[in-house]
Amino acid sequence: MIGDNIIFIGRKDTMDYVTAVVTQFRSGSKEVVIKARGKAISKAVDVAEIVRNRFIRDATVKEVRIGTEHIAAADGETNVSSIEVVLER
Amino acid sequence: MIGDNIIFIGRKDTMDYVTAVVTQFRSGSKEVVIKARGKAISKAVDVAEIVRNRFIRDATVKEVRIGTEHIAAADGETNVSSIEVVLER
Repeated sequence: MIGDNIIFIGRKDTMDYVTAVVTQFRSGSKEVVIKARGKAISKAVDVAEIVRNRFIRDATVKEVRIGTEHIAAADGETNVSSIEVVLER
Repeated sequence: MIGDNIIFIGRKDTMDYVTAVVTQFRSGSKEVVIKARGKAISKAVDVAEIVRNRFIRDATVKEVRIGTEHIAAADGETNVSSIEVVLER
């Protein structure tokens, strides 16, 4: 199913997301996309690095994309940076 | 001079680093590398995005590299994630 292999990084512990990514790979995914916005961007990089250094040793970083998203805010619109880390095995 | 076009992101305001990167480009650099570790990674992405969206409109993201660095700590060694965003114009 499209979109199943995308993990959004939020406020949970880093290891919760590591587990989610590892589970995706162990269930047969060849590619997992780790997405984050704003301050969660650092955590997304941590997740990707922990997954490939400690758990899925044959996973590699296929691509890292950065961008800017426009978010509706109380007083109009605000911009927030985003990242997508694509891991593949 | 080698290394002149590398900007390390630390605890200063985001706009201080934006200014540093813009200054590099305006002084003739064709490529600027924005580096950060740990929680500063999110700020590095902000800096890259603000530079190319607001100041150096012909700058593009040439490459984004992520990795893990081993840092000496009081009780041995610790790992920290890192990022390098390469902007070119």
